[in-house]
Amino acid sequence: MTTENPGSSTRPTVRVTGMFVSLDGYAAGNFVAIEQPFGEAIALTTGFDGRAIHGIDKVPDLTFDNAMTSLWGQGIGVEIMGRGKFGPQTGPWTEDGWRGWWGEEPPFETPVIVLTHHEREPIEFENGTAFHFLDATPAEALARAAELAPGTDVRIGGGPTSVRQFLEADLIDTMHLVIVPVTIGTGKRLLDGDIAPVERFEIDAVTMPSGRTHQLWRTKPRG
Amino acid sequence: MTTENPGSSTRPTVRVTGMFVSLDGYAAGNFVAIEQPFGEAIALTTGFDGRAIHGIDKVPDLTFDNAMTSLWGQGIGVEIMGRGKFGPQTGPWTEDGWRGWWGEEPPFETPVIVLTHHEREPIEFENGTAFHFLDATPAEALARAAELAPGTDVRIGGGPTSVRQFLEADLIDTMHLVIVPVTIGTGKRLLDGDIAPVERFEIDAVTMPSGRTHQLWRTKPRG
Repeated sequence: MTTENPGSSTRPTVRVTGMFVSLDGYAAGNFVAIEQPFGEAIALTTGFDGRAIHGIDKVPDLTFDNAMTSLWGQGIGVEIMGRGKFGPQTGPWTEDGWRGWWGEEPPFETPVIVLTHHEREPIEFENGTAFHFLDATPAEALARAAELAPGTDVRIGGGPTSVRQFLEADLIDTMHLVIVPVTIGTGKRLLDGDIAPVERFEIDAVTMPSGRTHQLWRTKPRG
Repeated sequence: MTTENPGSSTRPTVRVTGMFVSLDGYAAGNFVAIEQPFGEAIALTTGFDGRAIHGIDKVPDLTFDNAMTSLWGQGIGVEIMGRGKFGPQTGPWTEDGWRGWWGEEPPFETPVIVLTHHEREPIEFENGTAFHFLDATPAEALARAAELAPGTDVRIGGGPTSVRQFLEADLIDTMHLVIVPVTIGTGKRLLDGDIAPVERFEIDAVTMPSGRTHQLWRTKPRG
């Protein structure tokens, strides 16, 4: 799909898929380390079968959680992520050989834009994944995404800070959130008082047999 | 996935996806005509957006119903259908030029086995759909499906009579049913007193905001 962006040209549809949020609103930990990419928010992913991102046929169990997870890649040609999702480093890059959390088989299998103030040469993998490092606003990153994968949807992959930047810029069309029934108490919030979702989005919510509540956010028709 | 079939060799995983059933248990009408493939059970598909079978990016609305519909093609390499799903004719085929309900762009885009007592030459389409007409038991049809698309899952596409045949033969691994809140009163039932699902399946059920209840059936571990 493409989306008519009011006041400008057509841009790709922008989606958030399968973002985990705790009951108290946290979507990631504060303290991320190489051994623990989610930091102290690791409880968010307990019981999550990541294989379902590539389709329900890739997991042993046909569950509602897995079915919803399978939305992850549908029609997506490129992901945009924050630097913290790519790695734990901050500041200028060093020659440490880091190629992301995922080894030589990153699950994306598409171009990925990593938002960072420190641009560098792309890192490419045999399975189609290629990390492009870009110092850009959300709108600029979207324009680059459309160049990298014309005619496809764009996934905003997180973490919560980058999702919030796209929300603030009013550049998110749909979101699929998974509200996990755990209380984290500290970490990075998805929403932080700066956005009132009900003004911009229609939100459906269903609690699955696992106890996780899934929310689907759709942009309201613009007047 | 492949499934260990007790007492025999490995066979493909067999799935039913997105099968509509009325509150009173009917999955198709009795009286099917060229103008009305579902017969008097047309109310089952009201409000259904068929484009979602090819992915959530193909529909305008991110809804739970559309998300679940997108399971349809995931990992599927071949469909097996009853003759009534292919066309309204009965008995020996005539030279009437019938190529299915779908025109020159059938949505399957894979081989399709049509179960019929009247075999005939395959009918092929440019988009990858090819109808193969086979007089076979469910187990024989599955063996042929595995030849046509090795290593992929098999979808049993309906109608209800053919799904029930595979259930009776204990050859269904998972089912996704959509219970539509309408009362049809007459037609073809999915279950007809011959099978007790709870003996063989774990069943999760969730009612979506649309009012449709989705059921996911998973085969219980075999002792």
